Amino acid sequence: MIEIIGIGPGSKATMTLEAIEAIEKAEVIIGYKTYIDLIKEMLQDKQIVRNGMRQEVERCKEAIEIAKTGKRVAVVSSGDSGIYGMAGLILELVTKEGLDLPVKVIPGVTASIGGASILGAPIMHDFCHISLSDLLTPWEVIEKRLRLAAEADFVICLYNPRSKGRSGHLEKAFEIMAPYKNPNTPVGIIKNIGRAEEEKCIMKYGEMNYEQVDMTTMVIIGNKSTYTADGYMITPRGYSV
Amino acid sequence: MIEIIGIGPGSKATMTLEAIEAIEKAEVIIGYKTYIDLIKEMLQDKQIVRNGMRQEVERCKEAIEIAKTGKRVAVVSSGDSGIYGMAGLILELVTKEGLDLPVKVIPGVTASIGGASILGAPIMHDFCHISLSDLLTPWEVIEKRLRLAAEADFVICLYNPRSKGRSGHLEKAFEIMAPYKNPNTPVGIIKNIGRAEEEKCIMKYGEMNYEQVDMTTMVIIGNKSTYTADGYMITPRGYSV
Repeated sequence: MIEIIGIGPGSKATMTLEAIEAIEKAEVIIGYKTYIDLIKEMLQDKQIVRNGMRQEVERCKEAIEIAKTGKRVAVVSSGDSGIYGMAGLILELVTKEGLDLPVKVIPGVTASIGGASILGAPIMHDFCHISLSDLLTPWEVIEKRLRLAAEADFVICLYNPRSKGRSGHLEKAFEIMAPYKNPNTPVGIIKNIGRAEEEKCIMKYGEMNYEQVDMTTMVIIGNKSTYTADGYMITPRGYSV
Repeated sequence: MIEIIGIGPGSKATMTLEAIEAIEKAEVIIGYKTYIDLIKEMLQDKQIVRNGMRQEVERCKEAIEIAKTGKRVAVVSSGDSGIYGMAGLILELVTKEGLDLPVKVIPGVTASIGGASILGAPIMHDFCHISLSDLLTPWEVIEKRLRLAAEADFVICLYNPRSKGRSGHLEKAFEIMAPYKNPNTPVGIIKNIGRAEEEKCIMKYGEMNYEQVDMTTMVIIGNKSTYTADGYMITPRGYSV
């Protein structure tokens, strides 16, 4: 069997009981090396298959081959495995091959939720996730989603906001949303969520420092009602207080 | 101090270690009675304050009053406390009063993520959350978000999809999104996520049975690429497989 496990933002504290138990019971653990390293103290006596970035298809095919031999396999992703993680790819491959292989998806705390908890309560109202990576999605689709999401006044959580190869995407995204976002809109930035080097900062939309953002960062842009108070970023749901 | 805790969809298995520990350490537990009942076996020897629906402001004010006496208070929400939960309201009240009261938000697995894991992998690409409750949000805002989210081809997760007082909202929402959603788009429906009575079903957008949906239900509407295979609902991220 294959269990596809979201390990949360990065510390055991934010893993679910179910995820911890599944890892404990697994015989083989497969994942991107950075995620494997996050949970390495839980992996004594297990067969470990680490691989690099952009090897997702190979990783999932390998997991399936090992599971076919009858072993209990855990595929780990950070955050939730069903959000830009490995759950989709495993299920695509298993169903395409018509395999009779039990697959279980074990949910986890994704980066937007983990990051929001550190900032205060920025995603209390309708929000969306948009990945700025155009490795698998045409940039035109991403631009359209940014524009319509901003027009709809969603709180917007940006995944994969900025990498070395795509250092200009974040700035372009902010330009696209600018007609709909007041320059005073709070923007929350959280780096290395749940890890020792965790950092947060809240700035204004119109004074955004793009250099501060890298691939380990979650960017949360408020809606028209979002405000900051005492260092918290808060999106009211609408109660009279 | 106040800890605002997301207890996940409904079973201890989907709670994080951090949430379990915070509940164990708390002296007073406050929450909507249905959520308190979900975790009642963890609450021996604790002071419990249960209250009803639509008493959110009173509940949070009471939590703050008790915390001011020096007690360690846990406010529990199902799912994640920062998503349509109690985190925003507590922080609004604490900052408005200018209180020097430590507040910690402990994230949890929200219903869309829990529901997605049961359906397969429907939220693998950009998605949004929209609540259909117009108790605190004007219906026009909800309509606008539905229309723009459908036009942007987000996977759409509907919270509070249908209650006795608002039995027509879901059907209206489907009408608004219809120009952008192919009638064959898969729609996943999950009831009582993580509880003994959990039920799931996948239907087509054009053949939606609104009667099957109530307030305990999560509705996940696919994007243009979402498909079903072997009973799973899958939104591909875009890998070549």
